[in-house]
Amino acid sequence: MKIGIIGLGLIGGSLGFDLRNCGHIIYGVSRKESTCQRAIEREVVDHASININSLSTVDLIFICTPITLISSTLKQLTSNLRPEVIITDVGSVKTAIVKECEPLWSNFVGGHPMAGTAEQGIEAAQKNLFKAAPYVITPTENTPKNSIKILEQLAQSLGSKVYTCSPEIHDQAVAWISHLPVMVSASLIAACVGEKEKTVLNLAQQLASSGFKDTSRVGGGNPELGLMMAQYNKTGLLHSLQGYRQQLDEVIEYINREEWDSLEQLLMMTQKKRPPFIGGQKNS
Amino acid sequence: MKIGIIGLGLIGGSLGFDLRNCGHIIYGVSRKESTCQRAIEREVVDHASININSLSTVDLIFICTPITLISSTLKQLTSNLRPEVIITDVGSVKTAIVKECEPLWSNFVGGHPMAGTAEQGIEAAQKNLFKAAPYVITPTENTPKNSIKILEQLAQSLGSKVYTCSPEIHDQAVAWISHLPVMVSASLIAACVGEKEKTVLNLAQQLASSGFKDTSRVGGGNPELGLMMAQYNKTGLLHSLQGYRQQLDEVIEYINREEWDSLEQLLMMTQKKRPPFIGGQKNS
Repeated sequence: MKIGIIGLGLIGGSLGFDLRNCGHIIYGVSRKESTCQRAIEREVVDHASININSLSTVDLIFICTPITLISSTLKQLTSNLRPEVIITDVGSVKTAIVKECEPLWSNFVGGHPMAGTAEQGIEAAQKNLFKAAPYVITPTENTPKNSIKILEQLAQSLGSKVYTCSPEIHDQAVAWISHLPVMVSASLIAACVGEKEKTVLNLAQQLASSGFKDTSRVGGGNPELGLMMAQYNKTGLLHSLQGYRQQLDEVIEYINREEWDSLEQLLMMTQKKRPPFIGGQKNS
Repeated sequence: MKIGIIGLGLIGGSLGFDLRNCGHIIYGVSRKESTCQRAIEREVVDHASININSLSTVDLIFICTPITLISSTLKQLTSNLRPEVIITDVGSVKTAIVKECEPLWSNFVGGHPMAGTAEQGIEAAQKNLFKAAPYVITPTENTPKNSIKILEQLAQSLGSKVYTCSPEIHDQAVAWISHLPVMVSASLIAACVGEKEKTVLNLAQQLASSGFKDTSRVGGGNPELGLMMAQYNKTGLLHSLQGYRQQLDEVIEYINREEWDSLEQLLMMTQKKRPPFIGGQKNS
């Protein structure tokens, strides 16, 4: 297959490596000439160009730009393509993107390969990044069945665990396990810092250890990423936040009323229910 | 100095190793004869007995029992000791313990060496466990100054970073960085599990990755430990939980009202304020 990749960063570049390795011919597009050159040198792509029209002959296109640029990139593309060309993206939220993109291209299939590292850019691209990692494909009732199937097969060829669901189900699931933890964790840091008694705050900083470190990690991460989650997944995140707030209130009530049996039962439940969430997933 | 240690588990045994290494003569007490034997074999103590009266000649005693047994152990001890004997404990909450123990023995000095491993018992005892870890000493206005000084010197001889503060300051500081994270993290697991849409819950379990794993770790831990924190540090924990809940409500409001600038500023603040909490502390 001839495959186009727009955006040759960590995700786009790593897709290029593995798809090329599967025997596809890869056409890369980047805004920077220097990135195109490095993509060729690193053998991430077969061809590279700063001109989006260079993709006029491909069969399938991955849009691997930042989320904010996905639909505008799609608009630039569509005038020049045969209608049977499948276009997909790799954005980490799906409802908003699919809603914007589907009317622009009927052969659009939303996707979210859930792999990554802390690094960015073409130099961070690596082989087998998607192996054993989840790859969620989010068609709607309008998405052509054959296009879904082709994308599923491509994702399987990367070694990913492929899940297919609606954009809404995807967004609610990632709200729970990715976007909610960021807000929960950021609130922890902000609440601690809000302690008015400076002696307490200073001592807390000295005594903080692995428990605080782990619980605060994602809340102390990239602010742009947290903001993007809230902006693009407002509905899913608010649903999770409201469920979380109710749960927190229950815990506060147990402690306030000294309902120790109820608190113990809750903590026994959370100890038991955590393992199904952490069954050897790849980091993302 | 002749030093008694009651409870020869991870903490008591590790104290024995290091204090003995400093040249003190260590008298261990355990409820089990077999533990006494192992403590001698491992050279954790010089003498070991199941009889608490074996400590009648020592100068200082560490009570290293579980929190629930500290004051009853102290009661058993006091009839038999010279008034100048210093008694300290290693419990992870201090206000409640000091309040119970100080009236029983005027030379009682509360303490909390903040080191540990996931293991328990005499076999888990190890050398240098307290090195570079915080050791908090929590006197009151009634505590003899000289006894505080002697305990501080002993803690320093273990290589610990010694902090001296009131029991209340200690409990509020550990509420923020240790007890609050447990409740925040447990609430995260419980809220996720409470998602009523089973398709969403199942997918969330499949997609959960390092962010969820870290944020949920302490909430999926030992229920007894979490319960103990709430029971023995109710005041400190509730103060932290209320501050946390206000902070969470602020985040929810920002997202609800799409106040993206405020949310971004908050996330930039939490990114900046986290590092002072995680400056190379030893795990505890």
